Amino acid sequence: MTVYSKKITIHTKERIQFVKVTDLIRQSVKESGVQDGIVLINSMHITSSIFINDDEKGLIRDFEIWLERLAPKDFPYNHNKTGEDNGYSHLWRTIMGREAVVSVQNFELELGKWEEIFYGEFDGQREKKILIKVLGE
Amino acid sequence: MTVYSKKITIHTKERIQFVKVTDLIRQSVKESGVQDGIVLINSMHITSSIFINDDEKGLIRDFEIWLERLAPKDFPYNHNKTGEDNGYSHLWRTIMGREAVVSVQNFELELGKWEEIFYGEFDGQREKKILIKVLGE
Amino acid sequence: MTVYSKKITIHTKERIQFVKVTDLIRQSVKESGVQDGIVLINSMHITSSIFINDDEKGLIRDFEIWLERLAPKDFPYNHNKTGEDNGYSHLWRTIMGREAVVSVQNFELELGKWEEIFYGEFDGQREKKILIKVLGE
Repeated sequence: MTVYSKKITIHTKERIQFVKVTDLIRQSVKESGVQDGIVLINSMHITSSIFINDDEKGLIRDFEIWLERLAPKDFPYNHNKTGEDNGYSHLWRTIMGREAVVSVQNFELELGKWEEIFYGEFDGQREKKILIKVLGE
Repeated sequence: MTVYSKKITIHTKERIQFVKVTDLIRQSVKESGVQDGIVLINSMHITSSIFINDDEKGLIRDFEIWLERLAPKDFPYNHNKTGEDNGYSHLWRTIMGREAVVSVQNFELELGKWEEIFYGEFDGQREKKILIKVLGE
Repeated sequence: MTVYSKKITIHTKERIQFVKVTDLIRQSVKESGVQDGIVLINSMHITSSIFINDDEKGLIRDFEIWLERLAPKDFPYNHNKTGEDNGYSHLWRTIMGREAVVSVQNFELELGKWEEIFYGEFDGQREKKILIKVLGE
């Protein structure tokens, strides 16, 4: 059994930004030497997400419009009484999810044809980390 | 350590349909020969979900009504400018989730009393795949 | 390879209550003897969640207000025609998620600085169980 860990640093230019990370994860899986197993990919932050969906620009804009409708940025969140202004971002990350678990087969990520892995940043412009953990044979 | 992979093909009659797959997963776990471990079950498509909830007809209808309220089918999604008409289905799958990870104990799925595993199809009437990956001893 | 299983019983005083369980999971990881691997934590019930977010009182209140907005308690859910009155709680758990998978490194939970693990109870005041499964070396 092999267990392999890696962290990747992300620093987005925009406060809200979607970054495709499939190739970074694919590279980490190769480095792990795991032939058959799983990989866990998670954001280490409570205002960002790892999720899997389509790499299509229109959809990425739809996500932002939709999240704003479900949990508006400008809303009197109790969390913001602490001096923070990112209440919405904790809710956005809840909708989009913290982590993904993906099959590894033949030293490769085993994704569906249109599945791409994204890091969703909802309160960025500072250093954030993604944790990658590969387990298998 | 044993790692076991399997794919199941699903073809729904309806565009939107919920299919209970607990027994298919239970069968795959038995085939794996894994006594103690975990099983990852994920949709390989970006317009469908694997999720765990109650097998109750009323609730299943509630899910569809609720998803339509959170992300209506008839809405000017940017994604639909590509010629697609399934913008809503990418959002529905985000709410319902891509994957589930379940404990395997004594060669069996270890679910709570009312937990049932569902495939949620949001843009069906064509061939789709579920990936099952069992890891353990 | 080591696989370790444990169940924790939760009984909330309130029908809706958020319980921080990070220390209970940390303790279970130590008991497992796993140095490097992953831990799956899931609710065994369809009206409660395991999720990871910030331990901040205002945010916890925001979650409840927000869930009530997305899926009101007082709504004519089809599920409630069965005699149940907890239709909302199945939807709340869908939003908040069933499970979390976390890295284990050096015999410890490997969480981001602000990540805390919560049990979200949406139909409590009775005995519920959390399943913990640690896999690794």
